[in-house]
Amino acid sequence: MPPLRTALLQSSGTPGDIVKNLEILDAHAARAAAAGAGLLICPEMFLTGYAIGDAVPRLAETADGASAQAVAEIAARHGIAVLYGYPERGTGADAERVYNAAQLVGADGTRLANYRKTHLFGCFEQERFTPGDEPVVQAELGGLRIGLLICYDVEFPENVRAHALAGTDLLVVPTAQMHPFQFVAEKLVPVRAFESQMYVAYVNRTGPEGEFDFVGLSCLAGPDGIARARAGHGEELVIGDADPDFLAASRAANPYLRDRRPGLYASLAR
Amino acid sequence: MPPLRTALLQSSGTPGDIVKNLEILDAHAARAAAAGAGLLICPEMFLTGYAIGDAVPRLAETADGASAQAVAEIAARHGIAVLYGYPERGTGADAERVYNAAQLVGADGTRLANYRKTHLFGCFEQERFTPGDEPVVQAELGGLRIGLLICYDVEFPENVRAHALAGTDLLVVPTAQMHPFQFVAEKLVPVRAFESQMYVAYVNRTGPEGEFDFVGLSCLAGPDGIARARAGHGEELVIGDADPDFLAASRAANPYLRDRRPGLYASLAR
Repeated sequence: MPPLRTALLQSSGTPGDIVKNLEILDAHAARAAAAGAGLLICPEMFLTGYAIGDAVPRLAETADGASAQAVAEIAARHGIAVLYGYPERGTGADAERVYNAAQLVGADGTRLANYRKTHLFGCFEQERFTPGDEPVVQAELGGLRIGLLICYDVEFPENVRAHALAGTDLLVVPTAQMHPFQFVAEKLVPVRAFESQMYVAYVNRTGPEGEFDFVGLSCLAGPDGIARARAGHGEELVIGDADPDFLAASRAANPYLRDRRPGLYASLAR
Repeated sequence: MPPLRTALLQSSGTPGDIVKNLEILDAHAARAAAAGAGLLICPEMFLTGYAIGDAVPRLAETADGASAQAVAEIAARHGIAVLYGYPERGTGADAERVYNAAQLVGADGTRLANYRKTHLFGCFEQERFTPGDEPVVQAELGGLRIGLLICYDVEFPENVRAHALAGTDLLVVPTAQMHPFQFVAEKLVPVRAFESQMYVAYVNRTGPEGEFDFVGLSCLAGPDGIARARAGHGEELVIGDADPDFLAASRAANPYLRDRRPGLYASLAR
């Protein structure tokens, strides 16, 4: 099984300007595809910007909305799967709700999976979004099982373990990770990959935006806890490989999932 | 509340020689107490050595055995609490069983807590020891709630989280952590302290012993993920403070336990 070449777009785009952000996505999809990548990952809320304050409800779209269709066209045009973060408007009885979401679109433009952030961070998010209730959302891509989390979710080992137990090979985590928490990007994310034996792609925004200052440091961490690709603090497209054969060998040598004792973990789910 | 000064004795002692190891413990208890420490922590299986092969059953003692009494005398003589690892023989119907255990003795010589390793590592341990069944063992010391785990246990985030949920402030982890897994000592342990908001004291053996090569790198990690004390690869006594006030402030700023959603974690306990 060949590795899945994975491109991490560390960029804050242009907050508030969806048209401009779709142009940036289009340009980087072309670059990533030319570099042989099968998957391009954008940060949390890339479509609209993160620090858009009270514009969240106005810029929110349904999972099959106009921007989703535009992303599908970009993916199909360049033949590369795309994962992007956006504010998702619910439908039907749920139409007043907005979720902090991430959607995976296949290289043929098919929408493969949509995840709603379950662990909202801080007042900014908790006032504007409804938390999702589905902890594990997955899709198959290039022979790997892809799992989706968003930002703060990954800081809870429970969420990553739930993915490991469900067979996630490559955990994709768009994020908006800010100063002074760069310990998370630098140290915690590689430990998550090691302890649950999977690849973790953590893709951040960068620089100042509203009241926040995003730290960059996006990475693709392997199941050995080593970052196969690592961005600096600025706008950057970094590329690394998620290798199914290396992952299988690592899992055989590090039997954490086999050595677990679920009967002792009841307090975690109470 | 004053900090609990904590001494980490990174030493392999003299494998197979309990008398000699009690002498080493006595000497370091004196040094640690003179430095103002209220707690001295020894590595996994410090009493007997780790790579003692088939001598495990012969050297195993009950939790109130002769060596436990000798440790209690050392603790009381120097006025310092002592945590030490040893092979524990069961009692009564359990007398044929040996556990990989760690016992905490108070500064007055009282036995405060005894923990049996729940997650045994590799064939060497799984063939010789019976795993414990009590995931959270605690005691109060110097105004802090002390929790006990051993080595491989701490690599499972579930075990540390269970301690966090039970209020552990300082998690004490004697270990026998070997090459090539020094990622655990260097990176994973500080992340555990951060993600579950506690101090973690990880106290290792050092250098070659039988088929193993222990990496040292003992540390006292704070709830900010920063190692307050860190040993190198050789025999060493390192000292750091576990500060209840800093811990309380860190927990207020990092509300992981409050933001958990246990209703989403059922798969971990199945």
